[in-house]
Amino acid sequence: MKGVFITFEGIEGAGKSTQAKMLHNYFIEKNIKSVLTREPGGTALGKKIREILLTPTEDYFPPKAELMLYEADRNIHIHNIIKPNLENGINVICDRYTDSTLAYQGYARGLDLKLIENLNSIATEGLKPDITFLIDIPVEEGLKRILNTREKDRIEDEDLSFHQRLREGFLEIARKEKDRIYIINGLKEINEIFNDILEILKKRYII
Amino acid sequence: MKGVFITFEGIEGAGKSTQAKMLHNYFIEKNIKSVLTREPGGTALGKKIREILLTPTEDYFPPKAELMLYEADRNIHIHNIIKPNLENGINVICDRYTDSTLAYQGYARGLDLKLIENLNSIATEGLKPDITFLIDIPVEEGLKRILNTREKDRIEDEDLSFHQRLREGFLEIARKEKDRIYIINGLKEINEIFNDILEILKKRYII
Repeated sequence: MKGVFITFEGIEGAGKSTQAKMLHNYFIEKNIKSVLTREPGGTALGKKIREILLTPTEDYFPPKAELMLYEADRNIHIHNIIKPNLENGINVICDRYTDSTLAYQGYARGLDLKLIENLNSIATEGLKPDITFLIDIPVEEGLKRILNTREKDRIEDEDLSFHQRLREGFLEIARKEKDRIYIINGLKEINEIFNDILEILKKRYII
Repeated sequence: MKGVFITFEGIEGAGKSTQAKMLHNYFIEKNIKSVLTREPGGTALGKKIREILLTPTEDYFPPKAELMLYEADRNIHIHNIIKPNLENGINVICDRYTDSTLAYQGYARGLDLKLIENLNSIATEGLKPDITFLIDIPVEEGLKRILNTREKDRIEDEDLSFHQRLREGFLEIARKEKDRIYIINGLKEINEIFNDILEILKKRYII
């Protein structure tokens, strides 16, 4: 039996990393094999790429270069972590995947969506998530949460309209792939959100 | 007047970096504005990418990821160094460019040539060299020179047949683009090679 490939998506501060971790812990408690990983930076090589992506720089960082770095990280991640685990029957929970690239570089930063879909498909070599949870919250709420808890990095240091395009992008992607992507209300209390996620996983016979 | 974009290509140890430097010095002596740069690693950001590409790693480094890192470096390089200088009337001499990617990742490593041409065209946004010098030497000679002068890095630590495919790849690319690429005999003495290059530049009215 192959493992199940589950991804979490959403804007900054939506709470997706928290929910991804809760689901991973749930699997471990139930003796279901699970690996928790993330993009960018799910491998040692990828951590170096992630560092380049998140460190402020004096060079102009063109959006196409940014896109290609994300896709390189993804291809490394798939070969080293995602595929080997799935093939060994281990569930893989991934914090961000292709939908984030489409939302950030495409909808928010304005790169051609077809170009991104093309590069997503090259990098993933066809590997799609079995199920994706889009944790959705209003932009103002997400930014408020981030400012309260940590230093802003390069990506987070964008204006409000960028984050609004980002949220709308995620919602648009979800509307186009209703069979795979579930929109989760991220304004609920943490345990309530987690229960919503478990309900969907049960309904889909994943747990 | 826009600057002239000149690239140098060839296998390891062919002497292209030496010739690129000699040409740059020649321009400077003649009061012709010139910038000498290289790929990967022509920018601060690119140096970080170059380090990832050349450092041995325990992760499996998939060829497609390698390709995308080279192309990201290229796109950053073009926006920060190549285009601004050319637009300011400064000649740009670049040690390796798109032909290296096609030869290394395509002909030598076996990635689909169409995929590479596609990514080359995304990364360069259409910017082609005005003239390219392919310094050609037999593989055994190139490897002998490298082993005499420096530690092998990850890329150089490949078998002989890899380097043979690489050389053949470069020659094949040159045959396909005769108007742009000049094959230079790298077995000649250094100053003789440089004179061959100057002759061609004169014939093309570049100097």
